[in-house]
Amino acid sequence: MAPFRYKLRVRFNECDPQSVAFNANYLTYIDIAITDLYRQHFDDSYAEVMESNGVDVVVAEANLKFLAPARFDQEIEVALTIERLGNTSMEASAVICCEGAELVTAELRYVFVDIASWKKTPIPDQIRETMAKFGPA
Amino acid sequence: MAPFRYKLRVRFNECDPQSVAFNANYLTYIDIAITDLYRQHFDDSYAEVMESNGVDVVVAEANLKFLAPARFDQEIEVALTIERLGNTSMEASAVICCEGAELVTAELRYVFVDIASWKKTPIPDQIRETMAKFGPA
Amino acid sequence: MAPFRYKLRVRFNECDPQSVAFNANYLTYIDIAITDLYRQHFDDSYAEVMESNGVDVVVAEANLKFLAPARFDQEIEVALTIERLGNTSMEASAVICCEGAELVTAELRYVFVDIASWKKTPIPDQIRETMAKFGPA
Amino acid sequence: MAPFRYKLRVRFNECDPQSVAFNANYLTYIDIAITDLYRQHFDDSYAEVMESNGVDVVVAEANLKFLAPARFDQEIEVALTIERLGNTSMEASAVICCEGAELVTAELRYVFVDIASWKKTPIPDQIRETMAKFGPA
Repeated sequence: MAPFRYKLRVRFNECDPQSVAFNANYLTYIDIAITDLYRQHFDDSYAEVMESNGVDVVVAEANLKFLAPARFDQEIEVALTIERLGNTSMEASAVICCEGAELVTAELRYVFVDIASWKKTPIPDQIRETMAKFGPA
Repeated sequence: MAPFRYKLRVRFNECDPQSVAFNANYLTYIDIAITDLYRQHFDDSYAEVMESNGVDVVVAEANLKFLAPARFDQEIEVALTIERLGNTSMEASAVICCEGAELVTAELRYVFVDIASWKKTPIPDQIRETMAKFGPA
Repeated sequence: MAPFRYKLRVRFNECDPQSVAFNANYLTYIDIAITDLYRQHFDDSYAEVMESNGVDVVVAEANLKFLAPARFDQEIEVALTIERLGNTSMEASAVICCEGAELVTAELRYVFVDIASWKKTPIPDQIRETMAKFGPA
Repeated sequence: MAPFRYKLRVRFNECDPQSVAFNANYLTYIDIAITDLYRQHFDDSYAEVMESNGVDVVVAEANLKFLAPARFDQEIEVALTIERLGNTSMEASAVICCEGAELVTAELRYVFVDIASWKKTPIPDQIRETMAKFGPA
């Protein structure tokens, strides 16, 4: 099933006076894609999965390479692979493409935290099992 | 003391391919200005004032006229006047200028809500007294 | 054909600490919907339609009523009606709903400008004819 | 003179339902800081410096570590050091702090491009000389 693929269209307000998507928006695009992975592959929504497991997720690290720009109204695709499931952290890679060309590649590290203490906590089994389906080929 | 004046500089990412601040950002600029009014004129921060009074504020209505565009890196000024303090709602007007020229004029209606029930609630006295200082001349 | 309907899902980053979509984002949602109207009902993209007609469009006025909040991950629908096509300006109304409930209603006035002089210019025939299909019932 | 320091306050709309600044905004904060470096240390604005030199700058790489969250209304400081000035690229590091605590550290690589061809071009002397003042101690 890997990678998980999500398509979206670049919005006018996401483009800057260079007429390309502003760099910070790619981090947002990756966040939107991973939210959709939860929506598609869990029985509940992202918020409900987190709440019922007593956890939340924070981004601990993000490394991005910007290879080519996305422009207003272009449809781009975010492809997500869950590269590693540790005890409390999850590593993902993302490739954002447009018409077959790579625009941005990214590596992300997420950490699961207890919803009450906001301290690191093991990845809940339900999340671990589902995310494992999107591991590298 | 009216109007309350707040200056800010238009950010690159707030400008769109027309090279002007995207229209939705003016609502954000007004929100930033009113947050600063709380910061400057209450003993506590916006969040603390709300929490200690058991209330929150929502925007119920916003009417905006866009007269001229703001451009990247320009310093603009938001001038806020509290036009009317009702029982549960507050009306404000905003004029956003750049170098003496009016860019945007706006009328806003805010409603105070109980933090628990999210229902309309009277404006707390502390907030009413402070806001009254920024009434029309 | 009226109104033109466009669905989108509220993104995490569009929600604020009140856990609802920040008010300025509704203006963005309306912009995204009207861009999609161009995409669906013109032979070319929004940018190409504008460029080939030597025009651009600016928002001159926006009046919004916020009735109820949209929350993270909810699917909302923007319904657009072109209320009036003047010589150089176009008036639209928008109703943003979620599961049958009205969240935001808005009235917008757009002005067409010459791409070179940035002065008011008549609505090009191609745009007028297409927009007329979305007039009030 | 290194690092270049820029202070800003976290805006309400930049915070998400976790009540912290959404991760993508830190890339924006770094962009705002570097824009201010141009404003403070060149005779002209960022846009004018670029245009008069016939260049533009794009972000080619951004590596971010998120150590602790920034919250609504907090004042944070972006400290920028220009780590390396190559022929066509510039590397910077950024440390974003709040009340002495590190929130985010980042490494960025910028590439200068010809404004007409959008191809890599040597860093203009004027920009190189000014940026060199913010090199590592």
